[in-house]
Amino acid sequence: MDAPRIYMDHNATTAMDSRVLDAMMPYFQGEFGNPSSVHWHGQQARRAVDLARKEVGGIINAGIGEIVLTSGGTEANNLALQGTLKPGDHLISSAIEHPAILATCKHLEKQGVDITLVPVDAMGRVTPQVVADAIERRTKLISIMLANNDIGTIQPVADIAAIAAQHGVMVHTDAVQAVGKIPVDVKNLGVDLLSFSAHKLYGPKGVGAVYIRQGVELTSLIHGGQQEFRRRAGTENVAGAVGFGRACQLSEFHLQDADDLAELRDRLWRGLQERIDGIALNGHPEERLPNTLGLSIDGVDGPAVVMNLDLQGIAVSAGSACTSGSIKPSHVLLAMGHTLERATSTVRISLGRGNTTEEVDQLVEALALAIPRLRRVSAKPMVS
Amino acid sequence: MDAPRIYMDHNATTAMDSRVLDAMMPYFQGEFGNPSSVHWHGQQARRAVDLARKEVGGIINAGIGEIVLTSGGTEANNLALQGTLKPGDHLISSAIEHPAILATCKHLEKQGVDITLVPVDAMGRVTPQVVADAIERRTKLISIMLANNDIGTIQPVADIAAIAAQHGVMVHTDAVQAVGKIPVDVKNLGVDLLSFSAHKLYGPKGVGAVYIRQGVELTSLIHGGQQEFRRRAGTENVAGAVGFGRACQLSEFHLQDADDLAELRDRLWRGLQERIDGIALNGHPEERLPNTLGLSIDGVDGPAVVMNLDLQGIAVSAGSACTSGSIKPSHVLLAMGHTLERATSTVRISLGRGNTTEEVDQLVEALALAIPRLRRVSAKPMVS
Repeated sequence: MDAPRIYMDHNATTAMDSRVLDAMMPYFQGEFGNPSSVHWHGQQARRAVDLARKEVGGIINAGIGEIVLTSGGTEANNLALQGTLKPGDHLISSAIEHPAILATCKHLEKQGVDITLVPVDAMGRVTPQVVADAIERRTKLISIMLANNDIGTIQPVADIAAIAAQHGVMVHTDAVQAVGKIPVDVKNLGVDLLSFSAHKLYGPKGVGAVYIRQGVELTSLIHGGQQEFRRRAGTENVAGAVGFGRACQLSEFHLQDADDLAELRDRLWRGLQERIDGIALNGHPEERLPNTLGLSIDGVDGPAVVMNLDLQGIAVSAGSACTSGSIKPSHVLLAMGHTLERATSTVRISLGRGNTTEEVDQLVEALALAIPRLRRVSAKPMVS
Repeated sequence: MDAPRIYMDHNATTAMDSRVLDAMMPYFQGEFGNPSSVHWHGQQARRAVDLARKEVGGIINAGIGEIVLTSGGTEANNLALQGTLKPGDHLISSAIEHPAILATCKHLEKQGVDITLVPVDAMGRVTPQVVADAIERRTKLISIMLANNDIGTIQPVADIAAIAAQHGVMVHTDAVQAVGKIPVDVKNLGVDLLSFSAHKLYGPKGVGAVYIRQGVELTSLIHGGQQEFRRRAGTENVAGAVGFGRACQLSEFHLQDADDLAELRDRLWRGLQERIDGIALNGHPEERLPNTLGLSIDGVDGPAVVMNLDLQGIAVSAGSACTSGSIKPSHVLLAMGHTLERATSTVRISLGRGNTTEEVDQLVEALALAIPRLRRVSAKPMVS
């Protein structure tokens, strides 16, 4: 591989910002204390975690007492759902949630929680009225993702939260893909619970957070010491927290790059449309993350495209990193009412910091050459 | 503070080994992929996690498929207990377990799991026959810690596991304080489940593991993607896993330092006995971690001693870092049948790599000066 690699899979994970790493470094060795220790080493670590919590809360306009640090977005989602729902409760979620929500729903269903997964429209949007119609007397929580990982569609969470409030129902939103890409404000959204993760916004893997609005009652998932306001036991990942805090701080600053990212994404889309026929945009054309381009390409399997590009040093995804690896249709596309063919021919390009117009043009060129070849070797018929 | 600080609280946490940090560095930025991604970046990360898992398993003689990486020891303990017990099951644990076990027991009890906490003898040892006598028809799991965090007493887990096997009962051991300090071999112990943590053995905070013997069925705590053999969802903390692996590898090598540590600890104990009266060793004098010295000092509060030493730049603990901060009697000492006075006057000194005879002598000197002063200002009467 002579040419430098091109990474366009930022919805899967991101490289850590150098300034994040710089912020973390002191806490691996010099200031390595356990925040629960009363001595100097412990108190140094305690202060670092407190400051990090403030920075993490800052990016979503949450108070310091409303942020519980977790090991990542998946744990945050699990804590939000498992922590608030009991057998007999009713949960409303959507058909296009991330596996961290959908698998938790399945688990809760086995425990006796009643689950309704509302459908989405052809753009991948949840209709607030459909959620309103699903509310029952036993409905305790509504959990709708803020932005979808595969197609980037942004959900009308504020509208849903307004409806929920009228019925005294709590709202959680999985904002793992949204925070750092679009402005997110828990007060404006009106949500009770919100999950997000550091490694999607140039922070470290292994750390995330759940916003828990003051007054919300919640049972812990992990029991033990009194860390995280008694809501999440275990010695704090001090360096991870510090890195998450710094990443959030930097991210607020970088949100202004969103327009540049969207321009880059639109250049990519225009280029692909010019060079490749039988290509369709998945998701909402406007209500969408600025960095995400979800496509279906007629007559090819998504993973074949990903592997072909990988051989050329370009990293994209066929869908959520959590389920890719096996060729199975996107549950998101199927829920949008698309055919099995379209749902197995998905390619997700998610741009991020550092991506350039040159890289975008290279991807267009690579796909323009690869797709006709892949179509010839594919057994799949052209659909359109 | 002119003199360098002395850290003797290694049971709370340890500073990361430089070689651990070196091993982790590539995975923050260059090889930052998500192990679930099929492309090059993902596969680099996947290989790193696979290798780390092998190294982590290696230190306890576990197979690569038997190691589930978690966010730390507390989550590992929670997964082992919550993952195997259902309402109606019976769990046997001990009165001197870490809060990560005791708080999980309380949680499980609320869920309908029946809990028996067996007592310990005056040395802090669980008697295997007492465990045998507690086994009922519904007993599903026995969870006894391998070494106690406060007093270092090592439990006869292999004997307990042999008894359990006769009754078809599973055994879990919280080995968070043992791994890295004494040789631990899951096959020799005969346990089904074992929890341990990276930051206690010069690895990073925010990563731990649970050994799950092949064939043991277990329900996940955190649901979502198919990571960790479908037993623990969430994007892997790649750098953390790599650091844990390297720390385990180095730790196997460092186990030979145990004799040196024990010698240092014994020098400390001899020095303290010579200079201070009314001082007692807590725990078993031989069946004990080589690095841990648990004391009770007549006529003083443990936390007052800790704070006094802290002002002199010496870090020790009054007990588990998870509960210290408030002056409350050690539940471990109380379970051993000691008085409230003795249980509130505990000081834990836990040595580690880098501690020297000079530091030990400094601690003796500092305590020899501090204790009489603290006794004069204390309202507590001398007990002995």
